[in-house]
Amino acid sequence: MVDSGRSGVSPSSAGRSEVPPSSAGRRRGEQLVQAILDSALDQLSTVGWNGLTMEGVAAGARTGKAAVYRRWPSKADLVAAVLEAGMPPLGEIPDQGSIREDLALLCRRMRDAMHSRSGTALRSLLHECDSVSAQRFHELIRTVVTEPSTRHVRDLVGRGIVRGDVRPDATGDYVVDVIPAMMMYRSKVCGSEWTDLDIAEMLDQVLVPLLKA
Amino acid sequence: MVDSGRSGVSPSSAGRSEVPPSSAGRRRGEQLVQAILDSALDQLSTVGWNGLTMEGVAAGARTGKAAVYRRWPSKADLVAAVLEAGMPPLGEIPDQGSIREDLALLCRRMRDAMHSRSGTALRSLLHECDSVSAQRFHELIRTVVTEPSTRHVRDLVGRGIVRGDVRPDATGDYVVDVIPAMMMYRSKVCGSEWTDLDIAEMLDQVLVPLLKA
Repeated sequence: MVDSGRSGVSPSSAGRSEVPPSSAGRRRGEQLVQAILDSALDQLSTVGWNGLTMEGVAAGARTGKAAVYRRWPSKADLVAAVLEAGMPPLGEIPDQGSIREDLALLCRRMRDAMHSRSGTALRSLLHECDSVSAQRFHELIRTVVTEPSTRHVRDLVGRGIVRGDVRPDATGDYVVDVIPAMMMYRSKVCGSEWTDLDIAEMLDQVLVPLLKA
Repeated sequence: MVDSGRSGVSPSSAGRSEVPPSSAGRRRGEQLVQAILDSALDQLSTVGWNGLTMEGVAAGARTGKAAVYRRWPSKADLVAAVLEAGMPPLGEIPDQGSIREDLALLCRRMRDAMHSRSGTALRSLLHECDSVSAQRFHELIRTVVTEPSTRHVRDLVGRGIVRGDVRPDATGDYVVDVIPAMMMYRSKVCGSEWTDLDIAEMLDQVLVPLLKA
């Protein structure tokens, strides 16, 4: 507990802090938490789950191991916090009057999230998910990464059914998997960056014929 | 070159071999190659690309490092040989008179190949493909894993177009990606084992509506 009560300490009282004098001074709890999460994101993005260490995360956040361990008792707890805090939300998709345009906007947001710092970190963890150490993250990855995407697809398909440009029976669980599956497959196997053109071609070749009323 | 010329030596001349006395004796070159490839498959299946070592492969094959290094100068060369030798072929798909049945048979064979020792080893490598060390395998994985699957899908779709139960314009590159993408996504993100029922539901929900004439 080398810095217990830090969250109550004002930034003016710098000096005895774990933070080097070069820094803005002793950080409030929320600032330190963000610094630790940022550092953990950096580690996941570069060395992945297997390479990430609490020591490295603490060093990256310019704090001590105790400040990390007090908040997250294990590496798994810390990475879970990063996953839950880090992923940019896909946001609302406005009704643009066509399933093709609605899905295109969703795909571009999924692509941008996938290429964000958080997305890169999440992918590096997902890519390690066959190692026993990461099995426990399958559920969390589903909650943070997969379900938001498939829920959005399901919403847009439902809206298209109501609007009339999607067939009423396009409601299966596998249907909503197609977009995340295609984006994961091409980035992983083909190293695709998913340009706007790639997305348009994928929608025209697969989703539009699959869903059309 | 501790055992140069081994491939010409008969099994009767055991004793001075790298192989313990308990074994069947000095192995011919092709037997030793198979033992080394089997050992490398074991390592890929268990410790993956990052954990595989030439020493470990040699030990698993009950031979010396020199016997491995002489044939495959680097770990990457050895794993490339495993990838090329190991994957069970998908074989010919007989025309069963319906695109649904033809694709179902292909999917079951893909699933069985995916769950074979070789397939498990290949997946463990694929799952590490974001690490710089494995970038060079993207092309090889595409040749050994991806292209055979997509080529089969393309053939079956073409046959369905001729037969008349597939729409003539279902010929895009993204269309043939859907099955491998869905199988990879569900096994990776959802840990799906792809039962025959899973395959049938995926085909009925996605491929049949996507392809139907």
